[in-house]
Amino acid sequence: MLHTNITVNEKGHLTFAGMDTVALAEKYGTPLMLIDENRIRERAATYIGAMERYFGGESKPLYASKALSFTGIYKIIADAGMSIDIVSSGELYTAKNAGFPLENAYFHGNNKTDFDIEFAIDNGIGYFIADGYEEIDKIDSYAAEKGIKQRVLLRLTPGIDPHTNEKISTGKVDCKFGTPIETGQAEKYIAYVLSKANIELMGYHCHIGSQVFDCVPFCDAADIMIEYIAYIKKTLGYTAKVLNLGGGFGVRYVESDPYINIDENIRLISEHIKARCAENGIAVPTILMEPGRSMVADAGMTIYSVGTVKTISDYKSYVSVDGGMTDNPRYTLYGSKYTMALANKANEPADFECTVGGRCCESGDLLGENIFIQKPTRGDLLAVFVTGAYNYSMASNYNRVPRPPVVIIKDGADRLAVRRETFENLCALDVD
Amino acid sequence: MLHTNITVNEKGHLTFAGMDTVALAEKYGTPLMLIDENRIRERAATYIGAMERYFGGESKPLYASKALSFTGIYKIIADAGMSIDIVSSGELYTAKNAGFPLENAYFHGNNKTDFDIEFAIDNGIGYFIADGYEEIDKIDSYAAEKGIKQRVLLRLTPGIDPHTNEKISTGKVDCKFGTPIETGQAEKYIAYVLSKANIELMGYHCHIGSQVFDCVPFCDAADIMIEYIAYIKKTLGYTAKVLNLGGGFGVRYVESDPYINIDENIRLISEHIKARCAENGIAVPTILMEPGRSMVADAGMTIYSVGTVKTISDYKSYVSVDGGMTDNPRYTLYGSKYTMALANKANEPADFECTVGGRCCESGDLLGENIFIQKPTRGDLLAVFVTGAYNYSMASNYNRVPRPPVVIIKDGADRLAVRRETFENLCALDVD
Repeated sequence: MLHTNITVNEKGHLTFAGMDTVALAEKYGTPLMLIDENRIRERAATYIGAMERYFGGESKPLYASKALSFTGIYKIIADAGMSIDIVSSGELYTAKNAGFPLENAYFHGNNKTDFDIEFAIDNGIGYFIADGYEEIDKIDSYAAEKGIKQRVLLRLTPGIDPHTNEKISTGKVDCKFGTPIETGQAEKYIAYVLSKANIELMGYHCHIGSQVFDCVPFCDAADIMIEYIAYIKKTLGYTAKVLNLGGGFGVRYVESDPYINIDENIRLISEHIKARCAENGIAVPTILMEPGRSMVADAGMTIYSVGTVKTISDYKSYVSVDGGMTDNPRYTLYGSKYTMALANKANEPADFECTVGGRCCESGDLLGENIFIQKPTRGDLLAVFVTGAYNYSMASNYNRVPRPPVVIIKDGADRLAVRRETFENLCALDVD
Repeated sequence: MLHTNITVNEKGHLTFAGMDTVALAEKYGTPLMLIDENRIRERAATYIGAMERYFGGESKPLYASKALSFTGIYKIIADAGMSIDIVSSGELYTAKNAGFPLENAYFHGNNKTDFDIEFAIDNGIGYFIADGYEEIDKIDSYAAEKGIKQRVLLRLTPGIDPHTNEKISTGKVDCKFGTPIETGQAEKYIAYVLSKANIELMGYHCHIGSQVFDCVPFCDAADIMIEYIAYIKKTLGYTAKVLNLGGGFGVRYVESDPYINIDENIRLISEHIKARCAENGIAVPTILMEPGRSMVADAGMTIYSVGTVKTISDYKSYVSVDGGMTDNPRYTLYGSKYTMALANKANEPADFECTVGGRCCESGDLLGENIFIQKPTRGDLLAVFVTGAYNYSMASNYNRVPRPPVVIIKDGADRLAVRRETFENLCALDVD
């Protein structure tokens, strides 16, 4: 099917990571978020291996943990020997809770609060990816207070627009992230940072956006950044040791999305970067990438129960499930496409066209339109594929809907990683 | 300013519900959600009073509690003598937690699960607003099991499109909600419901959408529904006792939004309905309305701290705050407009044009574009007005950002209603 960890067994049930999803839904109830640990480990090995092989030295991928963030994930990532990017004190706390070595963590974000900076330094954060003068001032002054020199990368905007969804396109100059190169602001910013006694400037970060399916946008960004490293070497006498290219590769959500060979694309990027560095007379910097979506998306599947099935004569059919925008807001937010199937009827023909709606009292609460699944009836189980990224991490309690549990599957065994939220949990903070 | 509960005091600080917002931010930290209890009570009195005055009998408004739902709100609504609409077992649990009399609760939603129906009946729910055959079967069978006759309204779609934002437009026929009148499906559905021994059919519900600023869409929907009541009386011999018109009136978010006289509009709707009922030869039914947004929106204000302030030369300025789409996803979801001001500089000129961004590592995490506020610097307090509806209730932990506290202001006193979420809370369900 869409990915190799999705099959159908002899009972006609959908399997995920080798396990019967109908049996898992019976055991844990619905909605249910399943995570394929081995898939995450394979993906980590692919990124780590390719970056070691083609860049060598200290080049490495960081798991962009905002894609899927709970204690158990950081344990897997730590065990896989991968570094992380975090974007908040909450992610830092969660990683720490997992025993993650925070010297391998890179703290991102357009707006780190004073608390964030103090909390991160107190906990031995490896690197900040700083954004704006205010953060530099705070990092420098707090590092001075603690008697340390804090390692920092600077988020710069190279001015690339990879023509992805505007909401997740972050390389362009007009953006809340980064300091732009083309306006001359980045150079002043770098000079300012270099004047700070308690900051060790390691290099630059840029991010070109999400759902990138080939090496071209990375190469384009690298062109600008390598030239810029050479330029700043000339003007300010500073040579960046690290170049963080941000992001990872795109994810196959539906059949029409391409397959992507991550290893080969990293090889192509490395060749491109080595050639450009030679042309520009600089040493090849340590290269970082930040895959999030492609680390965990196809390691996830969500299982819902079908409730109301309704055909509006001369219009269309609506199939409603017991979750929706509360556990997966991506269709509502971005119109993101998903592949779905009835887990308990997976060997029947998928010839029923419908709109799949969530249970929220909101018209926009849909999981997809023009979806083809097996003919559904109340009580069937609907599986939505490739939900590992930006589903659980974006979940809300809108309509006071509790968040689903997260169950990790590894080597044919399932274990509860995050408990299902209870009504008591929903009211736990209510004091009046 | 935009609403009468927003002023500026002698210190030049913004006040809300008569209290200094700068002092409240110092006391509770930021981000901070403030709720003006008296405003909610005034609005409840307006709706209740107008519906009693112009419709009489048992006509009444229901607070659509998905707009803002936590234990303390249901206490206020119960004390104000208002009934509620709930959309999930989680809302029902929260209302029960507040001691709300559940016989005055109406259970909505396009997809009630078997659990929802059993849980609601077990807790003595007043009414279901049923949607689809599956729910009818389950309500009837469970009511039979409990030896009761359950009161039910049916959600029908009159086919009105009030030209509001598509995502919140729910009166049209092609929608996950309701059974359409124009296709003939509603008549069959009503006949089916009337055949059920353990259901007492009370009447119909329709909902025409949100942000409606005059009586016309309500009158249009009432025209269709009253004719339909007369038609079903003729064809099936059943006369609906209750007509629920759904929704309430629009809310003034920005200066260009109109003011609305709720009392006068309800008077106009009542005159319209009485005339139509007379024309159609039916008694005026009990009328229900379901204000949610207009009950709580301008009773809310959110206070953030300003972090990074950045001007991209030749483009625009970005002001980032310590919250964003995690506590208010409405700009990201719908492009909803808000009015803002710096709480600690409220008497300075609001001549600084900017995009206000949240703290999430996501380009789309904005609270507004082309916003005019006072010239900001790190540490200033940014107040976003009219955030009572669909902010706290839609909040998420994306980026592992804890949800803000909710503080209720009443008669010059503040009290904590919902505690600030802690990092420990974020990890409380993580078991692996």
